[in-house]
Amino acid sequence: MFRTTDGKPGVRKLIIDTDPGVDDTWAICLALRSPEVEVIGITSLFGNVRTKMATQNALYLMEKFGRPDIPVVEGSLTSIVGAEKERIADFVHGDDGFGNTNQPKPTLVAVEGKTAADFIVEKANEFPGQVTVVAMASATNVALALRQDPGIKHKLHEIIHLSGAFFVNGNVNPCAEANAFGDPEAADELYGSGARVTVIGLDVTQKLVTTARDMARMRARNHPHTNFLHDISQFYMQFHRDTVRQEGIFMHDPAALLLAFRKDLFRCKLGRVRVATEGLCRGQTIMDAGEKLWSFPNAWTENSRPPVEVALDVDVPGAMRVFRERYGIRSKWSSWLPF
Amino acid sequence: MFRTTDGKPGVRKLIIDTDPGVDDTWAICLALRSPEVEVIGITSLFGNVRTKMATQNALYLMEKFGRPDIPVVEGSLTSIVGAEKERIADFVHGDDGFGNTNQPKPTLVAVEGKTAADFIVEKANEFPGQVTVVAMASATNVALALRQDPGIKHKLHEIIHLSGAFFVNGNVNPCAEANAFGDPEAADELYGSGARVTVIGLDVTQKLVTTARDMARMRARNHPHTNFLHDISQFYMQFHRDTVRQEGIFMHDPAALLLAFRKDLFRCKLGRVRVATEGLCRGQTIMDAGEKLWSFPNAWTENSRPPVEVALDVDVPGAMRVFRERYGIRSKWSSWLPF
Repeated sequence: MFRTTDGKPGVRKLIIDTDPGVDDTWAICLALRSPEVEVIGITSLFGNVRTKMATQNALYLMEKFGRPDIPVVEGSLTSIVGAEKERIADFVHGDDGFGNTNQPKPTLVAVEGKTAADFIVEKANEFPGQVTVVAMASATNVALALRQDPGIKHKLHEIIHLSGAFFVNGNVNPCAEANAFGDPEAADELYGSGARVTVIGLDVTQKLVTTARDMARMRARNHPHTNFLHDISQFYMQFHRDTVRQEGIFMHDPAALLLAFRKDLFRCKLGRVRVATEGLCRGQTIMDAGEKLWSFPNAWTENSRPPVEVALDVDVPGAMRVFRERYGIRSKWSSWLPF
Repeated sequence: MFRTTDGKPGVRKLIIDTDPGVDDTWAICLALRSPEVEVIGITSLFGNVRTKMATQNALYLMEKFGRPDIPVVEGSLTSIVGAEKERIADFVHGDDGFGNTNQPKPTLVAVEGKTAADFIVEKANEFPGQVTVVAMASATNVALALRQDPGIKHKLHEIIHLSGAFFVNGNVNPCAEANAFGDPEAADELYGSGARVTVIGLDVTQKLVTTARDMARMRARNHPHTNFLHDISQFYMQFHRDTVRQEGIFMHDPAALLLAFRKDLFRCKLGRVRVATEGLCRGQTIMDAGEKLWSFPNAWTENSRPPVEVALDVDVPGAMRVFRERYGIRSKWSSWLPF
């Protein structure tokens, strides 16, 4: 349990900004099954699917996981500079974002007359010091919220952004990770905003793998939720087989979510981060790891760019223990909410 | 000892392309004191100093180290695209490249009527399969030689380029290492040339440190060469104190030279490398480490860019043992050429 700013014990309020997406679904499931956090809203964005489908998928997930009370708010349809065409990772998550499993349409509807940025601003002001935004897609919605009300940077407890590849190759190309690549201008703006930002990228998330065997155990429980996670992940698993020759899926989004309530499992370092927006390296995140005092000013030091926290390592057994418990992979599992 | 292409045992013929420079001087000293290699020429380039001073300094070193027989050939005065003004690291090596130690002018003179590129082409053709170029400055001269006679890419045994920062921060800024930054266009051309290239950058060279204590031992020998190395390194040492808070100097250039005859001490990996030439990341070297099969073509895969070898790690005790022996740091030293 955390203590809120007024010193009372409380759970961290989460806004999940997401493009579901297979591993987004895993992360949302983790959030809903973790007593340390309270999901107060879902905001949608393009990435794994287009924004409108992300909204529909988020609504479907609230229905599926029995949480129709959680509001879903639609986010930006385009990147912050309004690119003509967003990059959509349908070859990773399937055309439907659920691994082409033909799920029915949701009956729930999204919040009307409000953007994702509006919602983030509203909640940050309503619950100062208590709200963490876990942004698991590009930085667009969060950057727009900070533009709309720069004051929220002191009111949000933390913005966790799943983004970047700092000292490893990217996954879109050797430079760029998908969320940073999806809106590099927004990410560069967010990391220079002065908000309390923690970035977690491929350096860390690729260390956390749920294996095919783990998923077979989940399927063996034959619970609607474990079956669902298992089924939507088969397409995603095949993508991992094809591209990284691995019988297991990377826990990208669940890692970002875990960071919201188990930061003790991660090694983070403060440093200035820039995101390349031009040429070959567009979408690359570059952190000044602080190992050198620069002889001349550079793009990291200019305008006294504030530092952000970057997750650089994770206690793999510790993190996997939480995942196995919360996802019902452990055979002798006795958590608060059994499947 | 190596075997030459005709199967006879022989020493590797080296052309050292250099901008001396303090650690260049260390590397040249290492070469001249290593029976595994034969230095057949020195070519000069801008970097630590301007090209003309690099030529004068190289001539001075041949005189100082008693090797007036080794030809010194002047290289390009500008980067391959003819930049207006080169970046000169006089704040690292002193205005004279020798740590502001006021050395006398050399009496030797450079080869006339020949460029560095001419010389590399000539020697590659004269000794096919036997010549290694150790390029310890930017890639300009080597790239120009390959333009002049593309056939030499199959005749040079190897081109070792001291350049880049692959999975660590640069030393010019968080992106870029100095040699890559000095002529990124030339480096990108070289790494795509199809020549047998090995790149060694900060990932490796910063692991090899000669300490102030090591240098005090060298000074205690009171030999003209050890005294000289000690004296010219004091300014360079101060730079390390100021910027990386370290009582020791990085063995950048000696590491590249060592790679020419003790590759067994290094862990190298084959991969495609691009060098960014635009924007924020200008001068950054990005290797595709080959951990992913890309779903779509990218700047690394296009035009079937050939791979190069990249040094990613080094046996630190093993490498330092060679350095301590060859530089006379070890107290009980019994090499072939005692100081």
